[in-house]
Amino acid sequence: MTSGGIAPAASIEPRPAPRGTYRRLSVEERRAELLAAALGLFAHRPPEEVSLDDVAAAAGASRPLVYRYFPGGKQQLYEAALGSAAEQLRRCFAEPQTGPPTQRLSRALDRYLAFVDEHDAGFSALLQGGSVAETSRTSAIVDGVRRAAAEQILIHLGATSPGPRLRMMVRMWITAVEAASLIWLDEGKQPPLDELREWLVDHFVALLAATTARDEETAEVARTTLAQETPDGAVADLARRILPLVSHAAHLL
Amino acid sequence: MTSGGIAPAASIEPRPAPRGTYRRLSVEERRAELLAAALGLFAHRPPEEVSLDDVAAAAGASRPLVYRYFPGGKQQLYEAALGSAAEQLRRCFAEPQTGPPTQRLSRALDRYLAFVDEHDAGFSALLQGGSVAETSRTSAIVDGVRRAAAEQILIHLGATSPGPRLRMMVRMWITAVEAASLIWLDEGKQPPLDELREWLVDHFVALLAATTARDEETAEVARTTLAQETPDGAVADLARRILPLVSHAAHLL
Repeated sequence: MTSGGIAPAASIEPRPAPRGTYRRLSVEERRAELLAAALGLFAHRPPEEVSLDDVAAAAGASRPLVYRYFPGGKQQLYEAALGSAAEQLRRCFAEPQTGPPTQRLSRALDRYLAFVDEHDAGFSALLQGGSVAETSRTSAIVDGVRRAAAEQILIHLGATSPGPRLRMMVRMWITAVEAASLIWLDEGKQPPLDELREWLVDHFVALLAATTARDEETAEVARTTLAQETPDGAVADLARRILPLVSHAAHLL
Repeated sequence: MTSGGIAPAASIEPRPAPRGTYRRLSVEERRAELLAAALGLFAHRPPEEVSLDDVAAAAGASRPLVYRYFPGGKQQLYEAALGSAAEQLRRCFAEPQTGPPTQRLSRALDRYLAFVDEHDAGFSALLQGGSVAETSRTSAIVDGVRRAAAEQILIHLGATSPGPRLRMMVRMWITAVEAASLIWLDEGKQPPLDELREWLVDHFVALLAATTARDEETAEVARTTLAQETPDGAVADLARRILPLVSHAAHLL
């Protein structure tokens, strides 16, 4: 992973200066402030459209000061901002291991989709590819987030040493979530976030169920997961809504 | 789309020279031959590891000759080869509109996965991003294939003017297929292609069924699709295999 040395996002909120005093920031604080300004800009514009001067202006700093902290210029700033965004995304998927699993997934998705909503243009530019700022390092950062999300989900499924099929299933779903997020941004943020989130949870449940058909480990995980669901939860709701379709399948059975 | 001007793949098979005669190729034939050689190399190595000399050697041509046909050098050759690969991929999804829809999907996936198998390293390098040969033009070519695949699938679903939810569903599934293909290559081509294909068909059916829960248009499409399936087909098989899970869901109903 390439996010080493990046300040945790919790500390990158710009701090208000104590009133009437000259702001003396530590090296770490100044660096964090520049990073927060950069992330704010990269969130809403493709990297091509953000200049070092923009970052300096947004942080109330001079261009030479930005260069002192980021001698690699815009590319270094971009990768550092991406690293701090990745850290935020990783935290989206952290969730206590209690309650129905689909509720946990739903909360994680809520945070993830709020991040997508907040960083729209930057998220699109990053994941759609073809940006000049894209390197093997930025790809590694993005992949690190995917891996962290997959690990979290597998933990919540109670799969301590998941087999290839279960891992592949989770990674497929994560990619589908990314695709849905990009399409959602592309289509003017339709459908509403709540509907998108519910649908993505349904997608996960359906994929898990379909995968039980050919993999005993997944079947075991699905049974354990199902046992933790409640009659007012997402799985029960999905089952009730799909039921009408079953009456159209009589000729198959 | 940027594939304009590229010779159809059907004509890019290298032709054996008539015995004992000097091979006089037309401009188009020579170009197609160079392209076929390039595609063969780009299929099995990341673009970084293919040189213009490699292409010349593989085509039995000189470096200046390659430059005469592709003055833009390696990048132009790469994009042209990608365009011809894209044309092949598009044809994978062309399928007569008869028989159970899951059988048609299965045949299309068979061709698609055979392509992935055949162009392994190039496919990975292209879709994993971070390659220096990746530009907005190469991204557009890849996106064009995705769009063509989505259109084909929607035609087979009988959705003549599909709504946003149905379109989004199909695009999500296509992305999941790409992700599965990449993971499959990454994991030494496991599981066997047949199993992967069946699982991806199951995934499609499950996603379609789950989407009916929140979208009336998809429900209508699902009913029509279901009516064309047979008791010995993929949907019936999936339903039978998932049935055991339902007995674990009694507490939800």
